[in-house]
Formats: sequence, C-alpha cells, structure tokens
Amino acid sequence: MTVPASLVQSAADALRQRGWHIATAESCTGGMIAAHLTDLAGSSDWFERGFVTYSNAAKTELLGVPAEVIATHGAVSEPTALAMVAGALERSLAQIAVAVTGVAGPGGGSADKPVGTVWFGFAVRGQAPFAVRQQFDGDRASVRAATVAYALGRVVDLTEPPGVLV
Amino acid sequence: MTVPASLVQSAADALRQRGWHIATAESCTGGMIAAHLTDLAGSSDWFERGFVTYSNAAKTELLGVPAEVIATHGAVSEPTALAMVAGALERSLAQIAVAVTGVAGPGGGSADKPVGTVWFGFAVRGQAPFAVRQQFDGDRASVRAATVAYALGRVVDLTEPPGVLV
Repeated sequence: MTVPASLVQSAADALRQRGWHIATAESCTGGMIAAHLTDLAGSSDWFERGFVTYSNAAKTELLGVPAEVIATHGAVSEPTALAMVAGALERSLAQIAVAVTGVAGPGGGSADKPVGTVWFGFAVRGQAPFAVRQQFDGDRASVRAATVAYALGRVVDLTEPPGVLV
Repeated sequence: MTVPASLVQSAADALRQRGWHIATAESCTGGMIAAHLTDLAGSSDWFERGFVTYSNAAKTELLGVPAEVIATHGAVSEPTALAMVAGALERSLAQIAVAVTGVAGPGGGSADKPVGTVWFGFAVRGQAPFAVRQQFDGDRASVRAATVAYALGRVVDLTEPPGVLV
C-alpha cells in the first residue's frame, strides 16, 4: 500500500483550519510521517519539527525517554511511545504530536511483538497523551505505509474541532 | 523524478562497509532523506538519528544554528547549512552527517534564491564540514527528490574508503 494523498491533504487541512502545528517523533517510519506532512506546498503552516529517533540513544537524548523505560519495556512498547510523544510535544512549539515505534521487519519480531507491531503515541497540548497498539500485515514497506496512514488518520480525528449537535 | 532504489542501496552498502552511522538534518526535504535511508531492512546498522528542522526555531533549538546566522544570511544559505550539519554531527553518535536547506517551492523563491535552490552541508567526524549549493529544476516533488538523490550520492562518495593506486 501507499499513503493516500487525500489523507495527507486532510491532515494538512485539519491542522491549518485549527491553526495548529504538529511535531513528529518517529522510529520505525524513519521520517516518513514528516516527509508526507511536508509534501504539500505551504507546509510550514502546519508542520513544526520532527525527531527521527532511530537509535535508543536518540530516543533518550532527543525526546527524554528514560533509558530505564526502554530497558524494562523495550523500544516497541506503550511506555516508550508515551514518553516519545510527551517529549516531542514538550520539545517543540507544536500543539499536537505523534510518535511511532514498531517492528517494520523483516527482522526484529518476537512472539509477543511480531513484525507489524506498532505502538503509537498521541498528544494534544493541555490533554493527557495516550497510546494505541496496532498490528499491520505485509512487508516492511507495507507496514511503514500503514503506520503513516494510521498516524495521519488519528491526527485528523484529534485536530478536527469538537462537533456541535444540530 | 523519484529517488533510485539503487542509490539508497549504494549509500547503505558504503556506510555499512565503512562501519559508519549517519545523521541527517533536513529542512526542505522534511525527513525524506531519513525515510529513504531507513527503507531497507537492517537500517539501524547505518542510520542513527535525524532532525527535521522545518521551523527556524527548530534549527536553533535542535541543531544550535545561531538565530543571528538565520537572520543575517537566511535559512537557505551556506552559513545555515554549515551550522546545521555541524550541529547534527555534534548532537549525534554518527560518523557522517548531511544537512539540507532549500526552496522546494512553489512559493518562497526570490531573485537570488529561486525555487530549486538548495544548500547542502556535509560533515565527516574529524574533518572540516563543507557546503555545496545546487539548483534543481521542476516542481516541488522533483526538487525534493533531486535533493535526496544529490545528498545520497555525496554520502556515497564521502563514505567510500580512499582509493589505493595500483
């Protein structure tokens, strides 16, 4: 699969309409979310900065993920995703942040974290961050694209203003 | 244009053969260089971390680019590219770093920095960083892809061990 251009446009539109900027913290996608969010002209209106924290040292140094959290729970875990997204929001000027850490494959899978396991962290300024685990099928490219698409979809949901019942 | 997969493979092979990791600092490409360098399985063997410093504040806070340098010379300039790449190398565990800052378009061009103007910074640990200006044709996607391709090509050149005359 590839990431639908319409989804990138929806995320950009939602962020711009809300007047928000986004920050990204990426491990398994290696910068793909940031790359997609800057595909469109005018992207400085909604994209602020991104952290590609591939190594564990980068997660700790750039995002403040405690080394003990990684040692105890693993780089692909709910606590790591939460710490990543909290760090990205704190260390940026953005109103919303997304973090991803997963097993893109083909190597690196295990019984409880098979290839395709991805933990997402989401944070909106002034609200508690939360994490979501997803399991994606397919090869490395498919898992990475599905990860980007899921992240952007949730960003749209989180960014759209609360609806008004009429 | 798109970035040739063979070029990504060459960069990965050169880095792995040399035992080097790379760090990236990207403005106009918004994470595309990092995304390509992590396309291939095993990329933690050669990719360490990336900085997507889209805003000027991010360039200053994450890479240590002096705000006066940006104010005086502009975000798309030789001094900014040099400061970005020096900051990326210093603030990573990598042996080589690449930085890009340019005008991807369609807006943002000027008489002396038209759309397609890109400044690259390259740094190898223990050597003086250097910068290169390139001018690319085409639309936003073409300029971004050409920027990634140029960066990877120079990384291959810089990473390959010095040749021996026989």
